[in-house]
Amino acid sequence: MITAIAGGVGAARMLRGLVSVVPAEDVTAVVNTGDDIVLHGLHISPDLDTVTYTLASAIDPVQGWGLEGETWNAMEALDRFGGQTWFRLGDRDLATHLYRTQRLSEGAGLGDVTDEIVRAWGLRLRVLPMTNERVETRVTLAADGTEVGFQEYFVGERHSVPVRSIRFHGIEQAAPAPGVLDAIAAADRVVVCPSNPIVSIGPVLAVPGILDAIAARRDDVVAISPIIAGAALKGPADRMLVELGHEPSVLGVARLYAPFASTLLIDVADEALAGAVAAEGVRPVVVPTIMRDAETSAALARAVLAAYS
Amino acid sequence: MITAIAGGVGAARMLRGLVSVVPAEDVTAVVNTGDDIVLHGLHISPDLDTVTYTLASAIDPVQGWGLEGETWNAMEALDRFGGQTWFRLGDRDLATHLYRTQRLSEGAGLGDVTDEIVRAWGLRLRVLPMTNERVETRVTLAADGTEVGFQEYFVGERHSVPVRSIRFHGIEQAAPAPGVLDAIAAADRVVVCPSNPIVSIGPVLAVPGILDAIAARRDDVVAISPIIAGAALKGPADRMLVELGHEPSVLGVARLYAPFASTLLIDVADEALAGAVAAEGVRPVVVPTIMRDAETSAALARAVLAAYS
Repeated sequence: MITAIAGGVGAARMLRGLVSVVPAEDVTAVVNTGDDIVLHGLHISPDLDTVTYTLASAIDPVQGWGLEGETWNAMEALDRFGGQTWFRLGDRDLATHLYRTQRLSEGAGLGDVTDEIVRAWGLRLRVLPMTNERVETRVTLAADGTEVGFQEYFVGERHSVPVRSIRFHGIEQAAPAPGVLDAIAAADRVVVCPSNPIVSIGPVLAVPGILDAIAARRDDVVAISPIIAGAALKGPADRMLVELGHEPSVLGVARLYAPFASTLLIDVADEALAGAVAAEGVRPVVVPTIMRDAETSAALARAVLAAYS
Repeated sequence: MITAIAGGVGAARMLRGLVSVVPAEDVTAVVNTGDDIVLHGLHISPDLDTVTYTLASAIDPVQGWGLEGETWNAMEALDRFGGQTWFRLGDRDLATHLYRTQRLSEGAGLGDVTDEIVRAWGLRLRVLPMTNERVETRVTLAADGTEVGFQEYFVGERHSVPVRSIRFHGIEQAAPAPGVLDAIAAADRVVVCPSNPIVSIGPVLAVPGILDAIAARRDDVVAISPIIAGAALKGPADRMLVELGHEPSVLGVARLYAPFASTLLIDVADEALAGAVAAEGVRPVVVPTIMRDAETSAALARAVLAAYS
């Protein structure tokens, strides 16, 4: 049994690799929901959907989010009203949010609704939100101290502006979603996917109880660095690490993850830093970590499993 | 200045006729919102949208609701989840509900949002919801006394089951939307459109203050019977009149409207009932009332105006 801590795109590719080398039934993903946004009255869970769509081979492979072959008639019509079209929602993708919102309004928990959606896509892995409660990752911009929602920073500003600080609104009142703590405690292996340490893995760890549960499994926790040769493959993780006072390298990741991870997979490009990672008390494993396609995702998944032996 | 009391399809056609014979700026429609439904978290206002889409010449002419040339990708995708697809929402139509819901969540009143939508469609008439408050027309079914929402009866059951009673949930706490009472008081003419007397005109009249405002203008109120030769052209008005103890004819309409309308336009098919209508204290005007197209709508509009002279 493998439990994976997951954000969006990088985690989705890692999970696709894992379910190609072990039975999907043996994999549980605990997914960040700090990026969730309520827009047009709809509850949108970008990381949950990216994981689901990727595992269902339905993701748009070019943009890395949303559905392949999507149509945009609703957004085009919304432009007529001067509506909020900065967060692009395809017509078929809208159905996911319509369903989620309707079920939540009926009193279902986000975990149950997520399970219904994942099963409807024919997936056999288990996908859990980190919490059923509403947690909002909020970003204070360096320029003028304005605090904005994560998607306003990430999509609205295309994550191109410096960040002063990050907080997870509502996290103190949040509890791990049903099944999360058990999945961590019962797993043979806990994998921290190559997602943004601050705003993807960070919110999951900040849900009261989850960090302690993972740290209790430290010997069985393998993380994959999302930073390669000082840069993030996608998104603002590298700049964000610098802006928030961390080292923008595998060393910075090792320092952040040392309290709960015994092993860190770093890319071959960072082989020179293996000794420094080890000095932080984290065992480095040097492998190719870039997931370009199904084959490289599977190879990384095999490397993750091999790291345990 | 003309103020029209309106439901959905029949009213929309009447309004289209009116704005073709008088300047659109001179027409105000006060529209039923008892049919509104919150589904998937979205605030849907079917009568407001039917009026807007019809006046914008964007209505689907075959089904009489929704947008012409619509696509249904969101609904098809929603079927994957076993979602609630009984209330069909086209992709472009969804944009209207996304916009309305977002604006309401920002604190805008339904009247303001409606005005924004109507202007975005380039319309120059004024469209007002009967109230900014939430009112729900609820239907008790004769078969087993179950109470359901109006759309569950109208769309879900295709209005094919007998009705025991109707109520307008929330009506006591509702106030006329800003502008409604002024529009009635200031109008030269008040027109009651050929809509269902019970569930389209009924909710508007039931908003505290509106019936009194219209009754105060009784000499200037002209209604058009939605019942022709004992039958409704569309919808369940005829059966509903019977089920609720009214006469399913222009005579039944005259009795319902006599307290606030001085004149009733009845179809040439009902000429034989003109005397009986007059005996109820309502002046009958016999004209062709079926609106098949723009030309017949305009002819009926001219007949409405002529009825005042």
